[in-house]
Amino acid sequence: MDSFSARLDGVIASKKTMVCVGLDPVPSRMPTPDVLAFNKRIIDATHPMVAAYKPQLAFYEALGIEGMKALEGTIEHIRDVAPEVVIIGDGKRGDIGSTAAAYASAMFDHWDFDATTVNAYQGSDSVEPFMQYPGRGIFVLCRTSNPSSRDFQDLRSDEEHKPQFFQKVADAAERWNTNGNIGLVVGATAPMELRLIRADHQSMPFLVPGVGAQGGDAVQAVKAGCDGNGRGMLISSSRAILYASDDPRDFARYARIACHTLQRQIEQATEYVPGGSV
Amino acid sequence: MDSFSARLDGVIASKKTMVCVGLDPVPSRMPTPDVLAFNKRIIDATHPMVAAYKPQLAFYEALGIEGMKALEGTIEHIRDVAPEVVIIGDGKRGDIGSTAAAYASAMFDHWDFDATTVNAYQGSDSVEPFMQYPGRGIFVLCRTSNPSSRDFQDLRSDEEHKPQFFQKVADAAERWNTNGNIGLVVGATAPMELRLIRADHQSMPFLVPGVGAQGGDAVQAVKAGCDGNGRGMLISSSRAILYASDDPRDFARYARIACHTLQRQIEQATEYVPGGSV
Repeated sequence: MDSFSARLDGVIASKKTMVCVGLDPVPSRMPTPDVLAFNKRIIDATHPMVAAYKPQLAFYEALGIEGMKALEGTIEHIRDVAPEVVIIGDGKRGDIGSTAAAYASAMFDHWDFDATTVNAYQGSDSVEPFMQYPGRGIFVLCRTSNPSSRDFQDLRSDEEHKPQFFQKVADAAERWNTNGNIGLVVGATAPMELRLIRADHQSMPFLVPGVGAQGGDAVQAVKAGCDGNGRGMLISSSRAILYASDDPRDFARYARIACHTLQRQIEQATEYVPGGSV
Repeated sequence: MDSFSARLDGVIASKKTMVCVGLDPVPSRMPTPDVLAFNKRIIDATHPMVAAYKPQLAFYEALGIEGMKALEGTIEHIRDVAPEVVIIGDGKRGDIGSTAAAYASAMFDHWDFDATTVNAYQGSDSVEPFMQYPGRGIFVLCRTSNPSSRDFQDLRSDEEHKPQFFQKVADAAERWNTNGNIGLVVGATAPMELRLIRADHQSMPFLVPGVGAQGGDAVQAVKAGCDGNGRGMLISSSRAILYASDDPRDFARYARIACHTLQRQIEQATEYVPGGSV
């Protein structure tokens, strides 16, 4: 079986897109009340331009068991209409080994996600159970996109060269990455840190949230973070695509336009030859 | 409304127990196949000796929607038979502000947990939405009980006095704790660190996992971590209580004995007058 990183790179190369759409349904903002119907219309309108979808579990959990059912239907629908697309369950789980094994089972056995995000605050044994699934990907939180990411992630250690904490996490992830299935979460709002991490870690894919509503710039992010082939990233946008319009008839078309715009920005930043998929 | 910390202290003082039972159903280990039936028998056998129950969400999520229904029934049953007991949803969630708000809503609006665990790797704005719920508690991961906790948590910063990373997290939690609803997760497997953290933070309650199956010693932990009143902690045990016996007729009685033993160990460590509740 191909490693997760090889599979992801294949999707990016063949579809000529690094766009990841975050599926974060917020009832008060959705132009149509049904979560599954909303997600389906977003997916139908955007999947030709998309390398990955990323349902953020929090938004489904907040809706209780009904939310879980909507998530189930959403995953099924993506598999039906765009089986090549990578589905990332964004849960940022992390716990002691025996519990992490249960989370890994939830993510990969139950939900059948292709990849998931993990929080490595608890160290290697909190990540290890996720690594046991061949072909599945793990994006380790490294330097996140939110304003207070600097509270702890930017602290410097007193070791040689005084690396920052997020660099220690990236270094550990690289050491763990013997199966080619580990990547890093690095926010688009921190292009300097993104450049720094890419300089040290050439082969790991980056999941890059924070463009759009959070203020990160996609072009800057791609220039700072892409690999030697102009790939190796997923640029993730949620609100700017999902809520591009509040018109119940037209929101999917606006989502498609927002998605297309993001793909074009990324193409220009990487000097891709525009592909035939958009 | 009383603060969460005041409510917790009230339960501990009146029931004379700091025992927290982790409700971590693992089908392959359960002496009876039905999760809800298993949890109910454990709860019925142990609640007089218990200050808190702590369902670990991973084990319910691994069972999919059926697991969620079992969790729902478990919470209802605790409210029915032991309404004074604090219920901690152990999910270790943490994300950017807008997502953390959805997690807080899942934990407190949907599940109605009295408290939850959070992972503060993403800094203050990942914790802040949880603090918006008056009367609900937040236990911030500080120094965890697993072997690889030292991978990152023990790193020293290059700031004055070279605090370790877990100390920076504890200091931040203390700063955030303006409403008396923040506590810390500190593993029983690290009694030296527990003593260090208590020395610096007198008023925050500690949630202390790691006794029993993980090898932590309850007596040492209580001596190292209790507050000036001999309280201020929840000593959490899961596997050693739940799986004390694999006999389908008798497991609840053995769970009760294991729970009683833990309560007695804690009493002796704090020199409590043994209460009438056991």
